[in-house]
Amino acid sequence: MFVNERRFLVEWGDCDPAGIVFYPRYVEWFDACTTALFTEAGMPIKTLFEAHGVIGIPLVDVKTRFLVPSTYGDELLAQSSVLEWRKSSFRLQHQFFKAGILAVEGVETRVWTGRDPANPDRLKSRPIPAEVIERLSAHRPLPE
Amino acid sequence: MFVNERRFLVEWGDCDPAGIVFYPRYVEWFDACTTALFTEAGMPIKTLFEAHGVIGIPLVDVKTRFLVPSTYGDELLAQSSVLEWRKSSFRLQHQFFKAGILAVEGVETRVWTGRDPANPDRLKSRPIPAEVIERLSAHRPLPE
Amino acid sequence: MFVNERRFLVEWGDCDPAGIVFYPRYVEWFDACTTALFTEAGMPIKTLFEAHGVIGIPLVDVKTRFLVPSTYGDELLAQSSVLEWRKSSFRLQHQFFKAGILAVEGVETRVWTGRDPANPDRLKSRPIPAEVIERLSAHRPLPE
Amino acid sequence: MFVNERRFLVEWGDCDPAGIVFYPRYVEWFDACTTALFTEAGMPIKTLFEAHGVIGIPLVDVKTRFLVPSTYGDELLAQSSVLEWRKSSFRLQHQFFKAGILAVEGVETRVWTGRDPANPDRLKSRPIPAEVIERLSAHRPLPE
Repeated sequence: MFVNERRFLVEWGDCDPAGIVFYPRYVEWFDACTTALFTEAGMPIKTLFEAHGVIGIPLVDVKTRFLVPSTYGDELLAQSSVLEWRKSSFRLQHQFFKAGILAVEGVETRVWTGRDPANPDRLKSRPIPAEVIERLSAHRPLPE
Repeated sequence: MFVNERRFLVEWGDCDPAGIVFYPRYVEWFDACTTALFTEAGMPIKTLFEAHGVIGIPLVDVKTRFLVPSTYGDELLAQSSVLEWRKSSFRLQHQFFKAGILAVEGVETRVWTGRDPANPDRLKSRPIPAEVIERLSAHRPLPE
Repeated sequence: MFVNERRFLVEWGDCDPAGIVFYPRYVEWFDACTTALFTEAGMPIKTLFEAHGVIGIPLVDVKTRFLVPSTYGDELLAQSSVLEWRKSSFRLQHQFFKAGILAVEGVETRVWTGRDPANPDRLKSRPIPAEVIERLSAHRPLPE
Repeated sequence: MFVNERRFLVEWGDCDPAGIVFYPRYVEWFDACTTALFTEAGMPIKTLFEAHGVIGIPLVDVKTRFLVPSTYGDELLAQSSVLEWRKSSFRLQHQFFKAGILAVEGVETRVWTGRDPANPDRLKSRPIPAEVIERLSAHRPLPE
């Protein structure tokens, strides 16, 4: 699979009164990781979505494990890749490492989604384009 | 179990360019629901945490399912309760309904957490006080 | 002017490691206050924006003063109203009170904005509809 | 003055239903810029705050102008520096450029703040240490 890395610096405003990352921030970062994965595979989401008439790739589920807390000033390294392709949905994994140790792990299921032609106020899943699957399935080793 | 309800109005700033709630917002709302559950059970977290010397109740995992999208102006009704007690952790469920239909569901595992006496920079789980378990296990029927 | 009140409960996740509200949260709340002002004046923004073909009312400037810090569990009462109408922009004031004392004050300038007919990728200001001005200028005394 | 640059990539989740950055995000980024300014001047805030017994540098006011909207995928370059030193407060400027054009500008007044010795629940301003002023006043030209 195509694996992408993205670095995050934990900011003061990401942390709660206990001084650790307020956990929804990780879920926001999963989204940024997914965007970065598409961008690095040559498919910036803005042009990709417009080209395919999709409104986005909303989630149907996400499972997250929090293993090690982080605080402001900490640097996290995220590794993201697609785990599985289905017809119109796909599963992604994001692993956040702090100093080489797995700190947070998330697995998302997302759906390739457009407007319902029968009712533009409604959303409707669509088959994932072959090119998207191909590019995100290409072997790309991580930098050493 | 003690069940609490909390209403949320989806705001413009909660929504993404697809016009639907950016999904980490739900995870923020789970946290607000957990706080409200403690408050309604007579244990506002600020005084509770100070009384017990805990720094908070951080998550170890969360599983979320997104069934129905929502947009700004939508009103959501959340129902929250504890599903299970363990020695120092507990599992909570949050269900968000839109017009009576289950829209989002989250299950969190949280840990009753203090500073490590041996190293105040580290966090350490602690046994959940009996009073906390008792109050959040009390039967309280939902308002009709 | 039409004055609206909206209450906010400060949540754990709104606060930073100093234990006080992370100040961008207030700016998010200003947006929620502006939406509530329109809603209470009988113009929910979703239908209003669609009816007038505007994409929103983005800010051109905001000035904020922070007088009293707040922490999680605090309840804030916000009072919002329009201060001034111009052709396509207007100035709003939001005052947040904690236990009757002014804690935060913001003044925003917002623009009634649509797509540029000559280039739908660009935004363009439009004259504010008379009905909007009329409704938000109506005298409405605050609840005692 | 010591000027620091920090780059931001606008994420999907930073944008609202109009497809442009939800404006409180800029105010969050001002905070990240302030942290980066201290870090680059050799004073990471975590160790700095602990060394001086301060709880943070909360804002007393912020003025922001929004000149050019941005959307997801846009890259912004922020330049930050201190404009003025007072006894216990200081004014900072953050300018965000998109493709070389000034897009957003913020001016913040922040206070060097500790606990009140007479009442640890209260915050109290303190004189800014000479070293902080000296380091952030050092001339550092921007990279070409």
